[in-house]
Amino acid sequence: MDSTVLKSVKGTKDFMPPEQMQRNWIRRTLEEVFEAYGCKPLETPTLQYYELLASKYGGGEEILKEVYRLRDQGERELALRYDLTVPLAKVVGMNPEMRLPFKRYEIGKVFRDGPVKTGRLREFIQCDVDIIGTSSMLAEAELISMAFAAFAKLGLEVYIEVNNRKLLSGVLQELGVPGERAADVMLSLDKLAKIGVEGVQGDLRERQVEEPLVAAITSFLQKGALALDALAQQFSSELVQQGVQELQQLFAYLRGAGVTGEVRFSPFLARGLGIYTGTVYEIFLQDQSITSSIGSGGRYDEIIGRFLGDGREYPAVGISFGLDVILAALSLRAESARPAADVLVIPLATEELSLGLANRLRADGLRVELELAGRKLKKALDYANKEGIAYVLIYGENEVNSGQVVARDMREGSEQTVPLGLVSSWLGERI
Amino acid sequence: MDSTVLKSVKGTKDFMPPEQMQRNWIRRTLEEVFEAYGCKPLETPTLQYYELLASKYGGGEEILKEVYRLRDQGERELALRYDLTVPLAKVVGMNPEMRLPFKRYEIGKVFRDGPVKTGRLREFIQCDVDIIGTSSMLAEAELISMAFAAFAKLGLEVYIEVNNRKLLSGVLQELGVPGERAADVMLSLDKLAKIGVEGVQGDLRERQVEEPLVAAITSFLQKGALALDALAQQFSSELVQQGVQELQQLFAYLRGAGVTGEVRFSPFLARGLGIYTGTVYEIFLQDQSITSSIGSGGRYDEIIGRFLGDGREYPAVGISFGLDVILAALSLRAESARPAADVLVIPLATEELSLGLANRLRADGLRVELELAGRKLKKALDYANKEGIAYVLIYGENEVNSGQVVARDMREGSEQTVPLGLVSSWLGERI
Repeated sequence: MDSTVLKSVKGTKDFMPPEQMQRNWIRRTLEEVFEAYGCKPLETPTLQYYELLASKYGGGEEILKEVYRLRDQGERELALRYDLTVPLAKVVGMNPEMRLPFKRYEIGKVFRDGPVKTGRLREFIQCDVDIIGTSSMLAEAELISMAFAAFAKLGLEVYIEVNNRKLLSGVLQELGVPGERAADVMLSLDKLAKIGVEGVQGDLRERQVEEPLVAAITSFLQKGALALDALAQQFSSELVQQGVQELQQLFAYLRGAGVTGEVRFSPFLARGLGIYTGTVYEIFLQDQSITSSIGSGGRYDEIIGRFLGDGREYPAVGISFGLDVILAALSLRAESARPAADVLVIPLATEELSLGLANRLRADGLRVELELAGRKLKKALDYANKEGIAYVLIYGENEVNSGQVVARDMREGSEQTVPLGLVSSWLGERI
Repeated sequence: MDSTVLKSVKGTKDFMPPEQMQRNWIRRTLEEVFEAYGCKPLETPTLQYYELLASKYGGGEEILKEVYRLRDQGERELALRYDLTVPLAKVVGMNPEMRLPFKRYEIGKVFRDGPVKTGRLREFIQCDVDIIGTSSMLAEAELISMAFAAFAKLGLEVYIEVNNRKLLSGVLQELGVPGERAADVMLSLDKLAKIGVEGVQGDLRERQVEEPLVAAITSFLQKGALALDALAQQFSSELVQQGVQELQQLFAYLRGAGVTGEVRFSPFLARGLGIYTGTVYEIFLQDQSITSSIGSGGRYDEIIGRFLGDGREYPAVGISFGLDVILAALSLRAESARPAADVLVIPLATEELSLGLANRLRADGLRVELELAGRKLKKALDYANKEGIAYVLIYGENEVNSGQVVARDMREGSEQTVPLGLVSSWLGERI
């Protein structure tokens, strides 16, 4: 093998056991929480027709540049899915008899042939929960409540920023921002917390926003009346009032749900342009050890209906977690990864009996590694040490004759003989 | 959306919740058993360099016809992995400091652009365990023992056919089968159980095997002395004796391991041509409800070393389970799939309090669905019925005032009021 070939494709990596054990634990924890909330698993294919992904109401033109395309032997134009939402919309469209609301989760790989930055891979795992078929704010209350439950189980303290796109769009309309300027203005406003009012003013000018508009926005910001009630009083349009009402309903539901985590109203949170129609939210670590969001989502009531074009309405709200940003957050805490085995059994010319011993311990729920390579005792102990395996059972012919086994505590370096029948409970007490 | 686009790519399918819940359960059960045996998880990328997959000691030319090829934006020649073994060999090659033996499992999607038959998809999940770095028969004893443990947990009774390629090759050599005829003869012999000695004779003639060879093979088969001991006595070559010895060692280890499942010595089991060098095995359902194997594997001592070409030896043995053939086996038993939720909470104008009730039950480990669509009581009960949710909690204003909830057993159709503080234990006793 030419060693130049022995490498990972650009933008991909192998997840070695210590990392992969943590990723499996994150995945299982999320699955358990999703299922506690009555969400059902769905698995959609990686391969999709390119035409489906490229259709007008898919992810837009930007994302199409990052789509991996390929053909099969039948010359069909295929692509690798770039998210889990288009495949979900396809499933909804293909199953008109489906009972709504449909609460599904999917944890799966998506592919984007985009720029490779630190921590950003070209194939990565997304963890999505979506509720299709209800306009009630109960749906977002459930998702936000579920997010807090998930991060609590993962041992990460988070806060969630929440906004409503109707509120934001209404405010911009009343401030006189024309539709074609909305994107620029939103991007500027989104920086308010970081750069302050003057910063936003400068940023708007750099974006060549007209001076009267810059003045109107600046004056609005200078009032500092950005709380939900204050906005409700300043702006009277139907759109703003609707947005305020939805947020108030959501906050009431979150109180009812017993959510004790911090929910921050963030009036300029937009989450992109095309998709969201109501509630939007982003999840951040309280300790800011990672400053980007570690999960996000929102309501997209029109996308699936327009995508399917079957004349039906599909109100929808979703939330998405990044498996590897959660992995990064956990690694930053330097929590020690659990070793891959609870105990190593070392046979000293007792292979057959050791196999039986190992299997009895496994039947009792222990994770048991058996020394397979015929290493001598010292080397095998060295191996247990390096792997962080806390207990070792040494099973030699003397022990066979006395019906015992030598049990070694690797951290203490102590050994004692334990009758065979008691080995499992001896280990159970310690692990 | 043009409805012609709303379909799954040929050879792929969506796994809807009832199936996907079972697949998740199968995957978790396998992971638990793999980990009980001290195996470590690895996740390799889906995207690989085409050159790596096409290298001489990958899967051979046949498989290359079925490889999906694509390019990234940098015009790199990529491919979707067609198995999990080449990516494993790559990881071993890229990590020369790795401690051997390396026991890894990987459960992941592989892609083959091949003929689509019933039950065969172009993207499917493989569940592989491999042990790299030991020649000891302890390794296959562990894998076979693990396979029985896994299928026992899955509730499937299996038997395992075992053979050794050294034994088979040695027997063919002594019978005078030339190398270029070995493939044909093995394929014929593999049918012995189905078509009998005369059938094999005919099949050999159809394959235009020379008559003296047909006579030699037929006469050998007619003796019917195909047990391991009988073969050891009839054939004296080093190769045969080595194969016999390895099998005897393996069987002794399996007895020591306490394996009670049926292990059948199957002298003509070959498992393809190129890869295997020693032990081979295939797993079958005892009830034969599926006649093809539902798992298989063997020893391939030379592949990784030749593949890497680094002058080192990498004895290796593996086992592979098909997730969807296991799913099929379980479905044939018509075991009822578990519903996605243990209980449905129906708020009657008590949304906020119902959110709190649902979350408290979730914290107690229950899987709770909350009625989100504002359905009236009758429709909501109808929904619970269709979804197979066994218990429903009805929470109206009367119940709020009395600190109770109406708990309905959907199977019995009975209702009773339960104090709020006792709901969790009331459900816990029943679920």
